Amino acid sequence: MGTTFRLALCQMPAGMEKEKNVETALRFLREAKERGADMAVLPEMFNCPYSNRYFRAFAEPEGGPTCAAVASAAKELGIYVVAGTIPELEPAEGDEKGKVYNTCFVFDPEGKLIAKHRKVHLFDISIEGGQKFRESLTLSAGKDLCLFDTPWGRVGVTVCFDIRFPELALALAERGARMIISPASFAVTTGNEHWEVLFRARALDTLCFTAGCGAARDEKGLYVAYANSIICSPWGSVVARAGTGAEILCADIDLSYTEKIRAQLPVLSARKPELYKTW
Amino acid sequence: MGTTFRLALCQMPAGMEKEKNVETALRFLREAKERGADMAVLPEMFNCPYSNRYFRAFAEPEGGPTCAAVASAAKELGIYVVAGTIPELEPAEGDEKGKVYNTCFVFDPEGKLIAKHRKVHLFDISIEGGQKFRESLTLSAGKDLCLFDTPWGRVGVTVCFDIRFPELALALAERGARMIISPASFAVTTGNEHWEVLFRARALDTLCFTAGCGAARDEKGLYVAYANSIICSPWGSVVARAGTGAEILCADIDLSYTEKIRAQLPVLSARKPELYKTW
Repeated sequence: MGTTFRLALCQMPAGMEKEKNVETALRFLREAKERGADMAVLPEMFNCPYSNRYFRAFAEPEGGPTCAAVASAAKELGIYVVAGTIPELEPAEGDEKGKVYNTCFVFDPEGKLIAKHRKVHLFDISIEGGQKFRESLTLSAGKDLCLFDTPWGRVGVTVCFDIRFPELALALAERGARMIISPASFAVTTGNEHWEVLFRARALDTLCFTAGCGAARDEKGLYVAYANSIICSPWGSVVARAGTGAEILCADIDLSYTEKIRAQLPVLSARKPELYKTW
Repeated sequence: MGTTFRLALCQMPAGMEKEKNVETALRFLREAKERGADMAVLPEMFNCPYSNRYFRAFAEPEGGPTCAAVASAAKELGIYVVAGTIPELEPAEGDEKGKVYNTCFVFDPEGKLIAKHRKVHLFDISIEGGQKFRESLTLSAGKDLCLFDTPWGRVGVTVCFDIRFPELALALAERGARMIISPASFAVTTGNEHWEVLFRARALDTLCFTAGCGAARDEKGLYVAYANSIICSPWGSVVARAGTGAEILCADIDLSYTEKIRAQLPVLSARKPELYKTW
């Protein structure tokens, strides 16, 4: 099967109506397939406005209507789908309302759910004169790493704010990831200043490909997303980068390139974990 | 005393003669003082050609002539000196020749040696069509973290290739570092592609200031250094950046800015070490 596949980041718009958002996602997935994609990625909270006010109202359990629609599309199109994130509702003992997670579901070309990542590091920031957001007011944090296998190699998944944590990316690389895919929804301020450097850095730290898939920017939306979906190589360079509008960003990725770079710049094998131990 | 001090990165040339290199270093330290520096930094291997052929021949024990000269200058000028690195010779049991380390000595304004960092991650790379270098052929690796206290706040030290290891930077931040200073000697290829992104990333990962001090570029030298000394803020932006020639790069650093950024973007307190554990 080789190690090369075509990746498509679907930088779709997401608005106030869930059904319409899901329809948009399906349309982008179909177009990705038409462009030859073997794997398509959706953005963070692709079926829901990115706002604490809506997460619970839009939440669905695993296997709910959004998951079902995307699973069908993956099967119909015969592609892997890293289905951005949606608010995932899970019944919780002693909590009649249940918990809500910011969850990425991953489907294989048979439409089977093969992995899921619940965002581990919730987006709690308070930038002076800029973005303020506290996901932890409404969302619960995941506690697990997420990896899945494809015919081309192993892929790790993180969500948005998770990309600020190099140790998470390294833990994925150590478990065999050759690429780290991050559905994301950076704000414009931190996007302008931190988005590219973070995806380039995580690529260099782990000698993995990295990909960040944002939603298209809507200047009138509740939350103005940075967009600028990006794919970086294990050499830390930008392979492809989108603008701010609706767009599908495609690139052919050869995961064996990670081995080539790891042989030249052996930072993974040169780590000294005994020295970093801090707990 | 406050939290603000003037930092000077001495991007000096280093050639084939040790005594001349030390004289050059002293001249740069004096000029740094004239420019109001409270702390001056020298580059990696400032007294020695950057080549496996010369490390042992140029090596000195702690307290040898290079250390003595720099200690005197620190005292005479009344400034902190992060004395780049020199090849440090240490007698080793069962090895009559002793071991050589790539070591940064740090002197306080009394000329007292207050810290030293032996490069932990040796520079062993083999870039296709580019740089090949194996420090481990001649050098031994350090095994300790290095931090020192100043009236303005705590500073961590790493050397060159160490900057590629986010976990080392995080271990320093966790022990109270507000700034990470790295004497360095990147090659031109990896410098062009990785230098800035690494210093910006380590700043963002740790919400510390970072500073990389390179040697001036000598196109005819044994090793063509990238130069481009750099200072980055905990917000991940470039505060100051040198060119490729001999130069002193100065900036006034307010270490309390780290607290401000850490309050806005609390990535250090949001770490989940139990999840990253891989050993």
